[in-house]
Amino acid sequence: MSGTNRTKPLITGGPAIILVEPQLGENIGMVARAMANFGLSELRLVKPRDGWPSEKARVVAAKADHVIDGVKVFETLGEAVGDLSYLLATTARQRDMLKPVLAPEAAMKSINTRMNSSEKAGILFGRERWGLENDEIALANEIVTFPVNPAFASLNIAQAVLLISHEWLKVTMDAPLEPAFREPETQPASREDLIHLFEHLESALDEAKYFYPPEMREHLMLNIKNIFTHANLRQQEIQTLRGVIASLERRWMRSRRSQDKKSS
Amino acid sequence: MSGTNRTKPLITGGPAIILVEPQLGENIGMVARAMANFGLSELRLVKPRDGWPSEKARVVAAKADHVIDGVKVFETLGEAVGDLSYLLATTARQRDMLKPVLAPEAAMKSINTRMNSSEKAGILFGRERWGLENDEIALANEIVTFPVNPAFASLNIAQAVLLISHEWLKVTMDAPLEPAFREPETQPASREDLIHLFEHLESALDEAKYFYPPEMREHLMLNIKNIFTHANLRQQEIQTLRGVIASLERRWMRSRRSQDKKSS
Repeated sequence: MSGTNRTKPLITGGPAIILVEPQLGENIGMVARAMANFGLSELRLVKPRDGWPSEKARVVAAKADHVIDGVKVFETLGEAVGDLSYLLATTARQRDMLKPVLAPEAAMKSINTRMNSSEKAGILFGRERWGLENDEIALANEIVTFPVNPAFASLNIAQAVLLISHEWLKVTMDAPLEPAFREPETQPASREDLIHLFEHLESALDEAKYFYPPEMREHLMLNIKNIFTHANLRQQEIQTLRGVIASLERRWMRSRRSQDKKSS
Repeated sequence: MSGTNRTKPLITGGPAIILVEPQLGENIGMVARAMANFGLSELRLVKPRDGWPSEKARVVAAKADHVIDGVKVFETLGEAVGDLSYLLATTARQRDMLKPVLAPEAAMKSINTRMNSSEKAGILFGRERWGLENDEIALANEIVTFPVNPAFASLNIAQAVLLISHEWLKVTMDAPLEPAFREPETQPASREDLIHLFEHLESALDEAKYFYPPEMREHLMLNIKNIFTHANLRQQEIQTLRGVIASLERRWMRSRRSQDKKSS
């Protein structure tokens, strides 16, 4: 799915992603890559088990060097989130806490609104094995959780960061959602183009004695017209179809010409 | 982020995920796991490089056994999608094709609407290295692509499937809008019907010497296929179109017969 274009501007910014006591460098690398894919760039680590920097993280990050180079490491969660005014905590399990629970899309909208008013925001992700402790979640304003298959929920932190980052880019892009590229610019067919196509096809089918019995003509043409009107054809496609019809007609004319030649 | 609760019902169903020539068993396993997380269950493989079953895939799938056990393997893409009436192709690169391009959320809404009318739908994912070929994409009704950071786009297939599956679960959790009345109940065309239409038309055009110069054949057929794949044809419409082609062919044969008669 690689479609990187290094001539395009690199999107950066967004909320800080904070990993609490991540264990594997590979996971940190996957998180950096997921962030870079969707335009997030600020990664903070609280007590990474295997220390920092991590060569494994850099390799797995697949050239998301701007994220890896910007990583900040902290001894405590308090220090890691000290400068933030809006903090969300991700968790997969229900906690016995009076804290609003948001789906990722609503959460990213909320962050976007606050960052637009110059607030600083961040999202907490827990340890690979057991997530966040209750007293860590207690530091957050709100909880984010993912809609998952309740009987099969096994998101790892890189996947969770990927989903969050994707929602972030969607929310911050202009509404409605813009895909990364669009179909080629083309001219839609005018009704006139369509009518000419129908006339061409009807005359070819007439010659071919398609309309049988004759009283079925109207019904048969209606069916054919409906196929092409709901096809949302482009001008260029109408030309292609007319070429196809002309070609099938020419075969018949060639055949007739050779027949005329022989009879003469 | 594990929050699996085995006492809850397992969500299954949704569109089929079709991997074209996947190379690594690990990736197939990650795809199965991503699907299971968000309630998708039907996985199809076209010519997996290392064969099937794959022990690696099962290990990585982390107990998504219902997906792994249900995997179907096919020799050709045509066979793999033969029973589907609505097919989307994922791609990260812009293709020079007249095919609508959707973001994942819009794509999943479109699939959901069709599946609610009992259509069968699927989503194509390409090879790890270079994705889908143009003539594979030509079989799809529409293209799906992800909004990504243009200067850093490196989604792998498991991540792409994860994002798509997440959007699927989100869309299906919302109630679909019901219009005041519906179009008449008709059978959507299967991919197999479409493939037969293409074969019929190609052979008629061959006879008519449409493919000139010969090296343009592939390009010309691609254009024609794209017209009919994005037309969202019904089974009955395919029959109508084949009647049209057959009629234009018969004219030529009638003409030849009368010619043979005269020459004899």
